[in-house]
Amino acid sequence: MNSSTASDGDHGSREGVAKDLAPGCTSDDIEEGARYVATVNGVVEYGVFVDLSEVVSGLVHESKLDSTYEIGDEIVVELVEIRENGDLGFEEVATDPDRVNRADIAHGDSARIGSLGDRTGDAVYLEGDVVQIKQTAGPTVFSIRDGTGIVPCAAFEAAGVRAYPDIELDDTVRVSGTVEAHDDAPQLEVETVSILDGEERETVRARVDEAVEAAATPTDPEPLIEWPAFDALREDLAAVARRLRRAVLEGRPIRVRHHADGDGMCAALPVQLALENLISEVHADPDAPRHLFKRLPSKAPYYEMEDVTRDLNFALEDEVRHGQRLPLLFMVDNGSTEEDTPAYRALAQYDIPILAVDHHHPDPDAVGPLLEEHVNPYLHGEDYRITTGMMCVELARMIDPSITDDLEHVPAVAGLADRSKADAMERYLELAESAGYDESALNDIVEALDYAAHWLRYSSGPNLISDALDLDCDDPERHAELVDFLASRARRDVEDQLENAEGHVEHERLDNGAHLYRLDVENHARRFTYPAPGKTTGELHDRKVTETGDPVITIGYGPDFSVLRSDGVRLDIPNMVTELQAELDGAGVSGGGHLVVGSIKFVPGARERVLDALVDKMESAELDADLRSTLLRDDG
Amino acid sequence: MNSSTASDGDHGSREGVAKDLAPGCTSDDIEEGARYVATVNGVVEYGVFVDLSEVVSGLVHESKLDSTYEIGDEIVVELVEIRENGDLGFEEVATDPDRVNRADIAHGDSARIGSLGDRTGDAVYLEGDVVQIKQTAGPTVFSIRDGTGIVPCAAFEAAGVRAYPDIELDDTVRVSGTVEAHDDAPQLEVETVSILDGEERETVRARVDEAVEAAATPTDPEPLIEWPAFDALREDLAAVARRLRRAVLEGRPIRVRHHADGDGMCAALPVQLALENLISEVHADPDAPRHLFKRLPSKAPYYEMEDVTRDLNFALEDEVRHGQRLPLLFMVDNGSTEEDTPAYRALAQYDIPILAVDHHHPDPDAVGPLLEEHVNPYLHGEDYRITTGMMCVELARMIDPSITDDLEHVPAVAGLADRSKADAMERYLELAESAGYDESALNDIVEALDYAAHWLRYSSGPNLISDALDLDCDDPERHAELVDFLASRARRDVEDQLENAEGHVEHERLDNGAHLYRLDVENHARRFTYPAPGKTTGELHDRKVTETGDPVITIGYGPDFSVLRSDGVRLDIPNMVTELQAELDGAGVSGGGHLVVGSIKFVPGARERVLDALVDKMESAELDADLRSTLLRDDG
Amino acid sequence: MNSSTASDGDHGSREGVAKDLAPGCTSDDIEEGARYVATVNGVVEYGVFVDLSEVVSGLVHESKLDSTYEIGDEIVVELVEIRENGDLGFEEVATDPDRVNRADIAHGDSARIGSLGDRTGDAVYLEGDVVQIKQTAGPTVFSIRDGTGIVPCAAFEAAGVRAYPDIELDDTVRVSGTVEAHDDAPQLEVETVSILDGEERETVRARVDEAVEAAATPTDPEPLIEWPAFDALREDLAAVARRLRRAVLEGRPIRVRHHADGDGMCAALPVQLALENLISEVHADPDAPRHLFKRLPSKAPYYEMEDVTRDLNFALEDEVRHGQRLPLLFMVDNGSTEEDTPAYRALAQYDIPILAVDHHHPDPDAVGPLLEEHVNPYLHGEDYRITTGMMCVELARMIDPSITDDLEHVPAVAGLADRSKADAMERYLELAESAGYDESALNDIVEALDYAAHWLRYSSGPNLISDALDLDCDDPERHAELVDFLASRARRDVEDQLENAEGHVEHERLDNGAHLYRLDVENHARRFTYPAPGKTTGELHDRKVTETGDPVITIGYGPDFSVLRSDGVRLDIPNMVTELQAELDGAGVSGGGHLVVGSIKFVPGARERVLDALVDKMESAELDADLRSTLLRDDG
Repeated sequence: MNSSTASDGDHGSREGVAKDLAPGCTSDDIEEGARYVATVNGVVEYGVFVDLSEVVSGLVHESKLDSTYEIGDEIVVELVEIRENGDLGFEEVATDPDRVNRADIAHGDSARIGSLGDRTGDAVYLEGDVVQIKQTAGPTVFSIRDGTGIVPCAAFEAAGVRAYPDIELDDTVRVSGTVEAHDDAPQLEVETVSILDGEERETVRARVDEAVEAAATPTDPEPLIEWPAFDALREDLAAVARRLRRAVLEGRPIRVRHHADGDGMCAALPVQLALENLISEVHADPDAPRHLFKRLPSKAPYYEMEDVTRDLNFALEDEVRHGQRLPLLFMVDNGSTEEDTPAYRALAQYDIPILAVDHHHPDPDAVGPLLEEHVNPYLHGEDYRITTGMMCVELARMIDPSITDDLEHVPAVAGLADRSKADAMERYLELAESAGYDESALNDIVEALDYAAHWLRYSSGPNLISDALDLDCDDPERHAELVDFLASRARRDVEDQLENAEGHVEHERLDNGAHLYRLDVENHARRFTYPAPGKTTGELHDRKVTETGDPVITIGYGPDFSVLRSDGVRLDIPNMVTELQAELDGAGVSGGGHLVVGSIKFVPGARERVLDALVDKMESAELDADLRSTLLRDDG
Repeated sequence: MNSSTASDGDHGSREGVAKDLAPGCTSDDIEEGARYVATVNGVVEYGVFVDLSEVVSGLVHESKLDSTYEIGDEIVVELVEIRENGDLGFEEVATDPDRVNRADIAHGDSARIGSLGDRTGDAVYLEGDVVQIKQTAGPTVFSIRDGTGIVPCAAFEAAGVRAYPDIELDDTVRVSGTVEAHDDAPQLEVETVSILDGEERETVRARVDEAVEAAATPTDPEPLIEWPAFDALREDLAAVARRLRRAVLEGRPIRVRHHADGDGMCAALPVQLALENLISEVHADPDAPRHLFKRLPSKAPYYEMEDVTRDLNFALEDEVRHGQRLPLLFMVDNGSTEEDTPAYRALAQYDIPILAVDHHHPDPDAVGPLLEEHVNPYLHGEDYRITTGMMCVELARMIDPSITDDLEHVPAVAGLADRSKADAMERYLELAESAGYDESALNDIVEALDYAAHWLRYSSGPNLISDALDLDCDDPERHAELVDFLASRARRDVEDQLENAEGHVEHERLDNGAHLYRLDVENHARRFTYPAPGKTTGELHDRKVTETGDPVITIGYGPDFSVLRSDGVRLDIPNMVTELQAELDGAGVSGGGHLVVGSIKFVPGARERVLDALVDKMESAELDADLRSTLLRDDG
Repeated sequence: MNSSTASDGDHGSREGVAKDLAPGCTSDDIEEGARYVATVNGVVEYGVFVDLSEVVSGLVHESKLDSTYEIGDEIVVELVEIRENGDLGFEEVATDPDRVNRADIAHGDSARIGSLGDRTGDAVYLEGDVVQIKQTAGPTVFSIRDGTGIVPCAAFEAAGVRAYPDIELDDTVRVSGTVEAHDDAPQLEVETVSILDGEERETVRARVDEAVEAAATPTDPEPLIEWPAFDALREDLAAVARRLRRAVLEGRPIRVRHHADGDGMCAALPVQLALENLISEVHADPDAPRHLFKRLPSKAPYYEMEDVTRDLNFALEDEVRHGQRLPLLFMVDNGSTEEDTPAYRALAQYDIPILAVDHHHPDPDAVGPLLEEHVNPYLHGEDYRITTGMMCVELARMIDPSITDDLEHVPAVAGLADRSKADAMERYLELAESAGYDESALNDIVEALDYAAHWLRYSSGPNLISDALDLDCDDPERHAELVDFLASRARRDVEDQLENAEGHVEHERLDNGAHLYRLDVENHARRFTYPAPGKTTGELHDRKVTETGDPVITIGYGPDFSVLRSDGVRLDIPNMVTELQAELDGAGVSGGGHLVVGSIKFVPGARERVLDALVDKMESAELDADLRSTLLRDDG
């Protein structure tokens, strides 16, 4: 007779532990000396026959029995002997089967998801977390991760009926079944799923967490160039890389919203490449990169309510229809300002994590509490000269270092696109040169990206942009011809626009000696075509700076907006906006940007008042040769 | 010898009836005394052996034979005896097999679609109507309904080749085959399909009709509150419920077009919930709710030609690609006016049935002939105070009473959204209170819905709106936070807009003593953002009513439109529109609305003339304290 | 001993040729006297046993052996004898197996794709070109064409892993495998694929090319009417038909961009019908027509950068996701002018072939080098009176003559839509009359198409337009009612618009005696509705021509555009645009059209200058009764 003192903290009143074999278990799954929950299936003179599973059964001799049983009774037994012929000998354990702690035993070998590819046809069990639950017309499909990968497990209850309705997202489970090749990718045909709890859950969870944590650890590649100013940012970027990798490992979709300009594309595309590679590696389903990664350009310099509403709408639909987790949002070359916070707050209602890598002047007090990670050179005393593209190339390499060779020219493109005057530009240009791109070729790419982005509007146009940026180098001639075509079209259209505008530019000399140029871009520029008002104003400004060599301010205005560029004058556009809001009643002023590059919106009826007040402020600004409009393409 | 006098009305020249067994028929499908069409498969001295199917055969003894036959001849026989050993004895019937009326006998049990789930692997036959014919790359899939459900039946002729090309939508058929689990939902693998005609068709059709009619009968739940004014509408709503249920039962897609405002969403969402539940129940295919139900918001206060063109385009594509029936259109909180008739007429070309539940002032002469059902309180001497949301909550309960508990707060939200002054509001508010929503929470929901709808634009945003309206209560905290966020954003944006506008509001005192406020919403309000011109005008009006306590008229105008609100003045905007059309040549006036809430469009060049003429009319209007602008959100 | 002198030009150093059997080859695949690469699988006293495939093996007697071998060694043998009992006798060939030219021998019969439908379960091999390579989650699917059809061939390496990574699009291959019915359409389950080279490739390629060329040859149906002026165009159209048929035969997607007006639809729809029929015939996959054909209307009278960017984006995505070739672009009733060239150049970067059939005044120098085929009556001394619809009906018949009966009324509709004054119109009208459409019915169709196209905006609305044009005649009543409804709505809306405009039309008599009518369509016409400014101006002009009987010019203008119509005056609008560009600085003038029908764009600030300059030019134009605005619907 045998009484167990084993006890589980969670179930203090229970008596010991007995293994409960899944129906498919075989003699491979049992061991002498262990206790089992069994069912009586025959009562004979010399004892009772018991079943431990569909194929495991044996005798409890009457000499080992204290109680009497009937067919169908449950009994706790100890396996005392496995005879040479395979017969099993048991003895009764004097424990009430209803009070014993049952340890579910799955049939098959313990397996890791990462190595299921080689095991088609095998019976195995997995232990891990549930990361997606999708109800199909047939089975319920649970996606399980164990840190080595994510695999779909199909459990069938009845057509379209939720199997294991108790199981929820993020439960820790043991799933046993047969490895099948579904569309030839591994999938588990589920025999049983059991939710783990107590110590078992803690053990599995610790193992999964450890594996995920290890797998989430970003690589630490040598930076593309030496650049002390950048070093402070690497740790922040590593945290973002870790968060993104973890999202992939937990089956969470990732949605990237990036500024639809050259630097934004140079930042978002490498990250896309790296993450799609990682998703392919982690997920058994080859369609996973398409389902779990989405990149979307933002036309406005902040995250608009309309965009967040659309994003949320899609996320909730994917949740309902595909049982996906809600996504992680990654803001790229955008997302640092107060104007982003309403959209962030909308996501916060749904506990959607948000990361941002940006080089626009940040308002950390406003956005900080809403972001899980926020990387911005201004937070380290640096500035916009470290562009988002430069940062995200390093970030992409932390996620997937194998793509380094494809990215060597990208930071230089990003820097030229945002006219970065960073010291490091020279080294980036050299690096690009050594990869086969001289400065003129890089400038062509900048123009080509700008032109392509204009016409793509709200599409991400992945392949066209990849070809223009030369991210997959399998057809260098196509890249070269495409860039040549797009860049020359862009330049010709700019030329035409400025030629039309030229005669309508108003010029005056301000009291402080600066030139002020004004252009009504609504009435003296072509509408709804390339270049848009912001680009038109910027190009006009550049010409005037070059022509005069003096301090220059340029204003391009329409019925309800103005675009500002300044070189050599100590402006502070964000501050001017704040002042205008205070001074002008009913003008509906909003906007901002950088010190000397920005845009201002107002209600149409207040245009004259706003422009007059603006010019007054410019009139009294000091000259400052260092303040130059370097982020030209950022607003408009 | 045996001659039959049986005859079928449709085939007067035919001689009697004989059963014609399908090839798969077994001895289960035959009975003594019945006549069969058989084929001679052996001629011996003592008679001929005949086949009735692949496995049913027997002897016609020479004593029972009058004629001589060769192998392959057809013969009509009567089954005179089934011997104990299973041998069959036949006698010849002196009827020309070419002239007999053949009754096709399918193999298997007669089955009802509603219970196929339990019969996987069984040979059965079904009788019912064809409600969809979809040609796939492989088989042709006929969807059959028999009043107990709808099931896909796959018939294979050759890859991508239409099987049974004679069979058309709405034919009554007998389908025999094997029940299979396709993606584990029941599907019939077809052996034979035969079109029924004559008496057989009538019998089956009567049975199906009876079953459908019974299943289409709406439930008659106790109204949520007692409200005598509402009683007259219940019968009309029951007719709509019956029509919608019947559409589901005949596999017809349903397309809901609803007013994109608070009341419209409170009306359309409960109906969506109820219908999706019903579709799930009726259809074996779990994707059916997604394929057969679509809800779309309408921005305009009527059904625009562009919307109907798009709807028709999709419907015709679904018809061609998926063999779907053309849909039923259900107009919700919209659809009662003359302006809806062009769109209705477009649908009429395609015999698409249209229903409307609305509380806007109707033009029954214009829309009546085009609507199958038209529910509107004005048709019963009631008015807009019975909102569409109030009506559709009862309608939804008639379709699926099980959702009652989720809907108790919805009529109160609908009433507040449309500012209903109905007596019943008090009871609706109490009901909502008892369900856990006080008036302030309900008002927050109203603002939240309005704000979310604005940013969703043409998306229906089902999950976001469900969360805001708290239609599925599994996460009350999410609902509360979301509503709080959206409502506070909405209020802040309104506040900002009015602050900008305030200084530009023009005020005058009309001869009749009313205050007239005018705002140029194009020039003195922010464009393309929340709140839109209609909402801006409404909120301004409300403030002025509160501030002055006097009769107030407010006009918000843009280049080609004006929005009107009036309190305490006897206006009749629809009539003013008619007068302006007659008085002002070339002004292109259109529009309308309610007596004291409406909007008017005109060509931009006629703006001054239209506004002047409008003010003249207002000047001479009598005061009337009872006429108040209660349906504020309805136009704009 | 045997030494071969056979040699392959590509492999000069190699010694002779030996066949290399695929593993599945049987005795059906061998012949006495041929040489084979074999593997030693047994060494006995009296010789060595060799395997030629999994089931073909035999003995090389020691008397026929010069060298010694071990198990696993490769050896070149000649099959000297197939004994009656099936035993095979070989002799060694003294050739180094590493230096012999191996000719891969596939198992099974040589088969043609066009006849695979009857061979399910058979082992066969195909020879042809690779036209699509699609990586699925499971196998890699190669689409192979051999001139008789195109069939998917599924090769499995590992889940989602590219099988045969060396094989590229357009390689010539031999594929052996088993014919299976996938979704019941034929598909080859691949056993082996080998890339053919040298002479073998040339032979197969020649055979495929010949078959494709033969299959691409357009039919040469009798023209619908006799029309000498048209004859010159038939050869050009045959070349287009051949190019389109070839595209189908090589599995290349076809994208049609057509002018969104009556003539454009009358041209594009018959071509769509013919090509979809051909695609169905060629491709085993019944979804092929949907995947490989797309028709899109263009709102502008030229191919806009935004449209080409979108088209390119989709094409690149289909290339990446579905392994499709890049498409062929077919411009219909559009595409002949300099304004099309930027878009064409964008496509040229991707080597996308472009064809155009158009009757607008062409600029062959600009577009010629960018088009593979360019059909335009002006290139043959004819003019717009031969409409694109007339040409494309004949083109469609060259692709699929079986649709002739459905198209007899279409040229007449096209001619009326573009007001063609061609002599042939009378015969086309007679042809339509004999098909059951009198001139009034045809005019109704014209109005109906115009109205439907307006509301469809960027949708192609295939079924709605088909019904309006009566292209599939299965429901003539639906067609009649639909046309009646659309046409009467169109006429009523035009009536309303002109009534509004009437009072605001400015009239003056020019020095040359012509009437000039001007209308501000922005301020005196309803916006965003039917009829749009171009149609409004055209209808106004028509009325004035009828009213006065004199020469008339009509200008409809908005903030940044004007629409021009002229009758009886020798205008040359394209030339006027060129002059204005030279004369007016900063006006941003662009546009053009026909001599007396066109539109001009400018920057809003230059409107007065542009209109004044235009009127000056009109003032001095000569009268010419022959110049009439016949292509009214073409610009607007």
